[in-house]
Amino acid sequence: MSKYKLIYFNLRVLGEPIRFMFDYVGVPFQDVRIDRDKEWAGLKHSTGWGKLPILEIDGKQQICQSHAIAKYIARKYNLDGTNEFESAKCDEYVGVATDLRLEWRRYWFEQDPTKKQQIKEEFLNTIAPSYLSKYSKVLEDNGGKYLVGSSLTWADFFLTVFFELFEDTVDKNILDPYPILQQYKTNIFSIPQVKKCIENRPPYKI
Amino acid sequence: MSKYKLIYFNLRVLGEPIRFMFDYVGVPFQDVRIDRDKEWAGLKHSTGWGKLPILEIDGKQQICQSHAIAKYIARKYNLDGTNEFESAKCDEYVGVATDLRLEWRRYWFEQDPTKKQQIKEEFLNTIAPSYLSKYSKVLEDNGGKYLVGSSLTWADFFLTVFFELFEDTVDKNILDPYPILQQYKTNIFSIPQVKKCIENRPPYKI
Ligand SMILES: N[C@@H](CCC(=O)N[C@@H](CS)C(=O)NCC(=O)O)C(=O)O
Ligand SMILES: N[C@@H](CCC(=O)N[C@@H](CS)C(=O)NCC(=O)O)C(=O)O
Repeated sequence: MSKYKLIYFNLRVLGEPIRFMFDYVGVPFQDVRIDRDKEWAGLKHSTGWGKLPILEIDGKQQICQSHAIAKYIARKYNLDGTNEFESAKCDEYVGVATDLRLEWRRYWFEQDPTKKQQIKEEFLNTIAPSYLSKYSKVLEDNGGKYLVGSSLTWADFFLTVFFELFEDTVDKNILDPYPILQQYKTNIFSIPQVKKCIENRPPYKI
Repeated sequence: MSKYKLIYFNLRVLGEPIRFMFDYVGVPFQDVRIDRDKEWAGLKHSTGWGKLPILEIDGKQQICQSHAIAKYIARKYNLDGTNEFESAKCDEYVGVATDLRLEWRRYWFEQDPTKKQQIKEEFLNTIAPSYLSKYSKVLEDNGGKYLVGSSLTWADFFLTVFFELFEDTVDKNILDPYPILQQYKTNIFSIPQVKKCIENRPPYKI
């Protein structure tokens, strides 16, 4: 079996879906967490694109970009749907989740308190509901358990990790109007391997 | 053969790489270009996520998100590398190109002229060179013709279309310090099917 090293910060955002995937399929990986304040400046220029996450395979090959890494693992370990259309739907749902995460990012990195409050309200009242109601519909139409087809995919990990991120950093009640999304997240986070990972992880700021 | 309908605006940005791909593989598709000012407001709410592009297959299935659509077509018509690692490298290079496009987007949509000028300078002097020098190195290490392996992939279409976007909207000399990128773009745009597509397309604002 290949030896995997996942290099990221001690953050949830783009690393946690990949960590959950490895744990779920039972594939060991080295979970390297770079200290952003102390180590990153010295490392950034030696990386492919100056950003993390990076997956190193057998100490020689590297894949950068969270979606690329996750899809690679997903295809290897049957978490990418059961045909090419389902595989494309995984890409679609993760792409949309990233559009939403980038909206969240505007809020998170805004320095000016007045603007931050404005962006927060826009996020909570307009932007997030537009996405969440659509995801709710997708899940409802698909039976409520999984986003794609009738089995777990990497899209489920990205989406539920982002949900938790929004709950912890914007509003812990953000999913309240969408019971189907709450139940879905609870289900994914109750998968024994995922649950164990959650119990053992360090606290995250984001 | 499936019937494809690509729905996008009369823009280059996220549609053109997919149009080039269809033309390159010789697969006919309906090239629907929605008028953003006159038609979009009436259509937006009937789409999957309120955004374009969308690919419609045989009038029933839909795929949203540009990367998802392009990868689906790429896998069907052999433009996704020759193994799973090359396929992941395509995802990586397109993901990075999108990170850079999102930096460009900050410039393009900024309304305040002073800030716009500032962002433009940062883009031209710092951000774009950091990405372009790295792409230049990737191409050099790979022989200069293609980003991934020894054949054309969907990543080549995304990258060269974005290069042209930056030339046309930020600075027509942006690639001058990177002769390898200039030659690469010239090569891709000289592929007969792509050349024909370029000769026949309408003018684009972006
Ligand atoms: N599109 C990339 C984004 C990667 C990214 O923005 N990573 C951030 C951390 S979440 C980073 O490396 N920041 C440090 C830096 O830019 O110096 C992906 O999906 O992997
Ligand atoms: N991540 C998406 C982005 C799609 C997107 O932002 N599309 C823009 C046009 S380039 C759009 O539909 N804008 C119209 C709107 O948001 O109403 C993708 O890659 O397809």
